[in-house]
Amino acid sequence: MTTSIHTLDTPVAVVDVARMNRNIQRMQQRADSLGVRLRPHVKTTKCAQVVEAQIQAGAQGVTVSTLKEAQAFFTQGVTDILYAVAMAPNKLAHALDLRRAGCALIIVTDSVAGARAIVEFGRAHDERFEVFIEIDSDHHRSGVRSDDPLLGDIAKMIHEGGAVLKGVMTHAGESYKLNTLEALQEIAELERSECVKAAEAIRAAGIPCPEVSVGSTPTALSAVHLEGVTELRAGVYVFFDLVMHNVGVCALDDLALSVLTTVIGHQPDKGWIITDSGWMAMSRDRGTQAQQCDFGYGLVCDSNGTLIDGLLLRSANQEHGVASFEEGMSVDVEKLYPIGTQLRVLPNHACATGAQYPAYEALQPNGEMAHWSRVNGW
Amino acid sequence: MTTSIHTLDTPVAVVDVARMNRNIQRMQQRADSLGVRLRPHVKTTKCAQVVEAQIQAGAQGVTVSTLKEAQAFFTQGVTDILYAVAMAPNKLAHALDLRRAGCALIIVTDSVAGARAIVEFGRAHDERFEVFIEIDSDHHRSGVRSDDPLLGDIAKMIHEGGAVLKGVMTHAGESYKLNTLEALQEIAELERSECVKAAEAIRAAGIPCPEVSVGSTPTALSAVHLEGVTELRAGVYVFFDLVMHNVGVCALDDLALSVLTTVIGHQPDKGWIITDSGWMAMSRDRGTQAQQCDFGYGLVCDSNGTLIDGLLLRSANQEHGVASFEEGMSVDVEKLYPIGTQLRVLPNHACATGAQYPAYEALQPNGEMAHWSRVNGW
Repeated sequence: MTTSIHTLDTPVAVVDVARMNRNIQRMQQRADSLGVRLRPHVKTTKCAQVVEAQIQAGAQGVTVSTLKEAQAFFTQGVTDILYAVAMAPNKLAHALDLRRAGCALIIVTDSVAGARAIVEFGRAHDERFEVFIEIDSDHHRSGVRSDDPLLGDIAKMIHEGGAVLKGVMTHAGESYKLNTLEALQEIAELERSECVKAAEAIRAAGIPCPEVSVGSTPTALSAVHLEGVTELRAGVYVFFDLVMHNVGVCALDDLALSVLTTVIGHQPDKGWIITDSGWMAMSRDRGTQAQQCDFGYGLVCDSNGTLIDGLLLRSANQEHGVASFEEGMSVDVEKLYPIGTQLRVLPNHACATGAQYPAYEALQPNGEMAHWSRVNGW
Repeated sequence: MTTSIHTLDTPVAVVDVARMNRNIQRMQQRADSLGVRLRPHVKTTKCAQVVEAQIQAGAQGVTVSTLKEAQAFFTQGVTDILYAVAMAPNKLAHALDLRRAGCALIIVTDSVAGARAIVEFGRAHDERFEVFIEIDSDHHRSGVRSDDPLLGDIAKMIHEGGAVLKGVMTHAGESYKLNTLEALQEIAELERSECVKAAEAIRAAGIPCPEVSVGSTPTALSAVHLEGVTELRAGVYVFFDLVMHNVGVCALDDLALSVLTTVIGHQPDKGWIITDSGWMAMSRDRGTQAQQCDFGYGLVCDSNGTLIDGLLLRSANQEHGVASFEEGMSVDVEKLYPIGTQLRVLPNHACATGAQYPAYEALQPNGEMAHWSRVNGW
């Protein structure tokens, strides 16, 4: 395709493929040098072409956040898929269908009740589900603690109930709240050591536990070593975003996702530039609000992706964005950014912004555009 | 269809059609008693069945937030459509296509530059666009002030440039920040009087300005009279939401949209119920955060829609929600809400939550379910 970025209808989600490829290489090299497999979390992009690029670069299998993603990427030819959300009993029939079709789907639980539902459904349908136990390494969300006696009960329920205990997994979501290398290294080590400890406790009880799966973008890029770990999961690194920039794991020119928008008006007295990138285009994600730099709804670039110093998308209604310069900067916004001007906005959170769109428009290194669909919904 | 709500895959957006119909009746009666046409803003639902119900109840024409909505509802048979976002020059070709196909599309501008782009494109393509001038009645966002000399320049540009000045419109978005009847009546009167004043200024300059269009859900439900106004626009009233409840214009049992979710785990020590309604299911909208009652990511009900006292969805990751009771309430969450339990969450903002879904599942008054698609994207 030869469409130019300047002829796209706005708002539209633009992927800078050169930056994306660089990000993919960077994380793959991290995993390689740490001596672990990379199983990218594809919930960020939900996009066949991105998954293909990750696998071409060396990824082994993928992590998904919905069974719909699992279905789509299995159809695409990926068979090794981890569904990394604790299994709900009412989703087991869908998981069974995927496994019967040949997908090596791994499911997750963090409770005896969850494990029981899996083994009972498996026995009723003559299926040996492969299961990861989720470990709570940082008190962030789900998972069982490595020193909780329930861990042994869950492992036993899976192992003796006729399912396959494939391993343990954790995600140090608290890492998103940090912003120094020292703190990130510390939480990466916590993520690693807690997950390894859990695997060792299970093995000590005589139950095989081959896999130890850890990861988040901040910890993956900060870990000093991953002894005892077999695989690394990370997702948002493929595009990065302003939240990750505030965490300190990427530069602004690593950000591969932006929203192309058009200037539709002004309030010159207030220095406002009104754009067609409201929250429907950006998402309502205000992830930088609690960080050291609050970027509003995003940092504004020109249509070539060059940052405009001091210009932020400060507020958003459904289809209206309001951009303005930092206080004290005197800019004739009507003259410099007349109606019809195209701009690009770097988002707070690539996962949330991408989800507002049915597809990405991919700006390829040769300057040509491609249309890349997403697998939205459940 | 005879599917029950309890067999739906979760998360899913459920519409209580009985409540929706009651909300539609209420707003239609308001418009009727105020002596104005109702032109609902369909950006909340973007849904053919909802638009059909609004028109059946007496709505005349619709307001849309994207040209994609205009296209979809024109195809459905609605011809009188107001695209209520200031027209970008690069969208004029699409607007022209719609008008050539027979759609009486009205477009909007609030600047001389915007008006010039419209009339020049119209002349080049032999099309007399119908145009509303957007008035800024409350300093909220876009629009020209009723006493700004530019108002006359814009009207003149449209009228003498060969387009049709159809009228003036305004939206008092600041009304969302209020929560007393007195303040709402005051801003409704400001919205009315500023828009009427603008129409009168244009008429005094000898330019016809037949229509005066105002509205937002809070002002529409609070206005004492609408003298001089010809039509009322409002959107979110069709479903209402927790933000509107905090504004004071609906009761909790008016809320017609909820997210059906499944319990997937617990952290019993913390009193946490983990659900499959993360921010992907709820949206990132935290509209109640700045209001008098912060409802987190939503109020939790049982699967029949009955509120569970004190239970809030307090935080959300992409596919994980964390619900917990108010501090001091001692509840055995594992026992009362075991894994697999279905719950329904009332959202902060119906427009944002709906946008996370390709379709609604409509729970009809006879108990049967229907699948209602949305027109997402641009």
